[in-house]
Amino acid sequence: MTEDAAARVCSIDLLICARWVVPVEPDRVVLEDHAIAVDDGAIVEVLPAPDAAPKYAPRERVDLPEHALIPGLVNAHTHNPMTLLRGLADDLPLMQWLQEHIWPVEAKTIGPEFVRDGVELAIAEMLRGGTTCCSENYFFPDAQAQVYKAHGFRAMVGLPIIEFPSAWAKGRDEYFERALAVHDHWRGDALIGTTFAPHAPYTVADASFERIRTLSDQLDLPVHLHLMETAREVEDSRREHGLRPMQRLQKLGLVNDRLIAVHMTQVSDAEIATCAEAGVSVVHCPESNLKLASGFCPAEKLRRGGVNVALGTDGCASNNDLDMFGELRTAALLAKGVASDAAAFDDAFALRAATLNGAKALQLDAEIGSIEAGKRADLVAVKMDEVETQPLYNVISHLAYAVSRRQVSDVWIDGARKLANGALIDFDLAGVLENARRWRERIQATRSVG
Amino acid sequence: MTEDAAARVCSIDLLICARWVVPVEPDRVVLEDHAIAVDDGAIVEVLPAPDAAPKYAPRERVDLPEHALIPGLVNAHTHNPMTLLRGLADDLPLMQWLQEHIWPVEAKTIGPEFVRDGVELAIAEMLRGGTTCCSENYFFPDAQAQVYKAHGFRAMVGLPIIEFPSAWAKGRDEYFERALAVHDHWRGDALIGTTFAPHAPYTVADASFERIRTLSDQLDLPVHLHLMETAREVEDSRREHGLRPMQRLQKLGLVNDRLIAVHMTQVSDAEIATCAEAGVSVVHCPESNLKLASGFCPAEKLRRGGVNVALGTDGCASNNDLDMFGELRTAALLAKGVASDAAAFDDAFALRAATLNGAKALQLDAEIGSIEAGKRADLVAVKMDEVETQPLYNVISHLAYAVSRRQVSDVWIDGARKLANGALIDFDLAGVLENARRWRERIQATRSVG
Repeated sequence: MTEDAAARVCSIDLLICARWVVPVEPDRVVLEDHAIAVDDGAIVEVLPAPDAAPKYAPRERVDLPEHALIPGLVNAHTHNPMTLLRGLADDLPLMQWLQEHIWPVEAKTIGPEFVRDGVELAIAEMLRGGTTCCSENYFFPDAQAQVYKAHGFRAMVGLPIIEFPSAWAKGRDEYFERALAVHDHWRGDALIGTTFAPHAPYTVADASFERIRTLSDQLDLPVHLHLMETAREVEDSRREHGLRPMQRLQKLGLVNDRLIAVHMTQVSDAEIATCAEAGVSVVHCPESNLKLASGFCPAEKLRRGGVNVALGTDGCASNNDLDMFGELRTAALLAKGVASDAAAFDDAFALRAATLNGAKALQLDAEIGSIEAGKRADLVAVKMDEVETQPLYNVISHLAYAVSRRQVSDVWIDGARKLANGALIDFDLAGVLENARRWRERIQATRSVG
Repeated sequence: MTEDAAARVCSIDLLICARWVVPVEPDRVVLEDHAIAVDDGAIVEVLPAPDAAPKYAPRERVDLPEHALIPGLVNAHTHNPMTLLRGLADDLPLMQWLQEHIWPVEAKTIGPEFVRDGVELAIAEMLRGGTTCCSENYFFPDAQAQVYKAHGFRAMVGLPIIEFPSAWAKGRDEYFERALAVHDHWRGDALIGTTFAPHAPYTVADASFERIRTLSDQLDLPVHLHLMETAREVEDSRREHGLRPMQRLQKLGLVNDRLIAVHMTQVSDAEIATCAEAGVSVVHCPESNLKLASGFCPAEKLRRGGVNVALGTDGCASNNDLDMFGELRTAALLAKGVASDAAAFDDAFALRAATLNGAKALQLDAEIGSIEAGKRADLVAVKMDEVETQPLYNVISHLAYAVSRRQVSDVWIDGARKLANGALIDFDLAGVLENARRWRERIQATRSVG
């Protein structure tokens, strides 16, 4: 190489060369034999692989000759500490499931230790399945944030507000104090963000919603809440407030582009138009809605109505996994049945909902959600040469309808490798599994003594 | 050991000791630390592991210390040669998908070679996912049967009857001649059985149905057909015959305990009662029904009505996999949504539908479908100590809601090991994948020339 050429070679941290790159933006594009240049945690350039060699001198080079590289999946609604309750109680309606099983166990176990161990188990599962960012909704966001940060995992932790005393806070003032303290602690962090997380219209009073509205305006914080999950919620709200839950939120000034509305099985056509106009994001959790028989979210109508539709697994206790590949597939299949239209919620849209739309809901779409120069390097490689994804006519079809999360081979978050050829990096997996077993014993003991 | 004790030790082929055994029959039972004694392809005894050592002298012993052992999964409706068309065309309604994509490609490719290579790819996928028996529905059943037999895979091949000429047969008489020849060839085989497979009421004439009725009575053969898959099928039948498809079949004498009715999204309450009374089996294919927006099969109503409900993936081209763990999970989730009842189609029932009910539909329930002494040893081990199935409170819950098919570690069919610790045995996987790639190129070429 001449001195002149060497001068033009750019030193970078990482070059990833993949058989296929699905950047998500531009939409519906599959780039063959492309390279991603990464430096200092950011994507520097996406370019044909043959052009990369003369241009970049990477400190590390990763070849993915049979893989599709996609943006990291964004789980826009989860309760990850509840991963410790996976399969504890199934096949029950929402209120019976909560009141007779989940809440009694939580009452005896919730605390920073439960939250830390649950989140750590969830991180292992998420990384192995290609999820690189999640939006949390649980108690002890401080403990959650610490674990996510320690593992270099990107998370938006919800600051819980609910009108019941809990191990986290005794009353309204304490919920707000602790929320603001957590927000303040993590302000400006590269990986950890916060949202306000009022539980739901039926568990949060107008006075709290009014404070949330003021604070979310002042601090520019998203508001993440369960909304219109069941028909009963709508009926109860009408009886109690004379308004549908969404009307009540409108009256309270919360229906705007900061609102992350989760579930929305009962959303009306008029409300879809309102959401689109106001810039509300909807997080569709199809598997949880099915499992709890909560109703069918009209996901295709929301999409056609111009609403930003993201996807979430919901907590592991009502799913029972954190599998975003499974969730996007269920979303794509179910939306067709619900819309009576086999063209609904197609493969490319399902992948977009699970990546860029999730990022947008969390106000992170300038940073993540697609493979574009300037964004952070949250990247996932999927090995496509396995029996279950052969033959291969269409990469995006397979990512939506055929891939298993167990085909995820490599994961990077913010440019740091978290999974290499299926193995977690710098992760005490045995210790995490041992903790899960210990929690199982503690929880079983709690239940048998009643 | 004394001579007396040695005399009481029974020499057998195989002893499998598992942490959990879920026999399916008796229903809802989980046996801890149990052993399965297998000899000459049959289950000799199911007993506590500590009792097995003094009683049996196995030639091979397999320990599964972190596994659940279940009966092999039964895929009661598939078109496995179409595995070569996986992901060829998606997000299209049934008729457009068939007429513009699937049928034109099939017209140019169908033949024994296509069928053989497709079935072989499907066998690899099925074994890796814990399926040990399938019910086929495609052309060239002779070629299918040969491949299944060569791989020691249990299959019921459908003898196709349709009023269109095809590469398999030119007209009605030839379809029946070839059907009877295949039936005759495989009569009495330990692994391969046959069913009549008239395609659907809208593609088969009364005269053919009458011949099928006579022959199925004489030969005691099940009749496997697509029935009431879409609302349009019902409307067309009413217009053409003045009858709903099921009424027409009743008139033709085909509604009896030999009938395997696939899809049934349009089944009425009265027809559910008729099915229960007549002993009809229904094969529910939830993922295919969703993907093609065919309608929602009332699976829970069928179950409560006393109908034998089995599960099928349908062909890989409309699913897009042969994952029976995925299918039973989708069935369990979707039925709750459709029935508006979170207790519907519970975990244990989903597992039963995917095993014993499938066997019953195929008239194989005396041989397979549960882990009981006297049945053939079709067994599947699932590794439960992975992140995705921890903690573990309830084995059956995890098998239904959390397990990925990639956790299947070991598979036996008729006592012969087909998968050991995740690896296929005596299987030229590289060759099968190479064939799949070659078919992809041939089919792509076919399409681009129009």
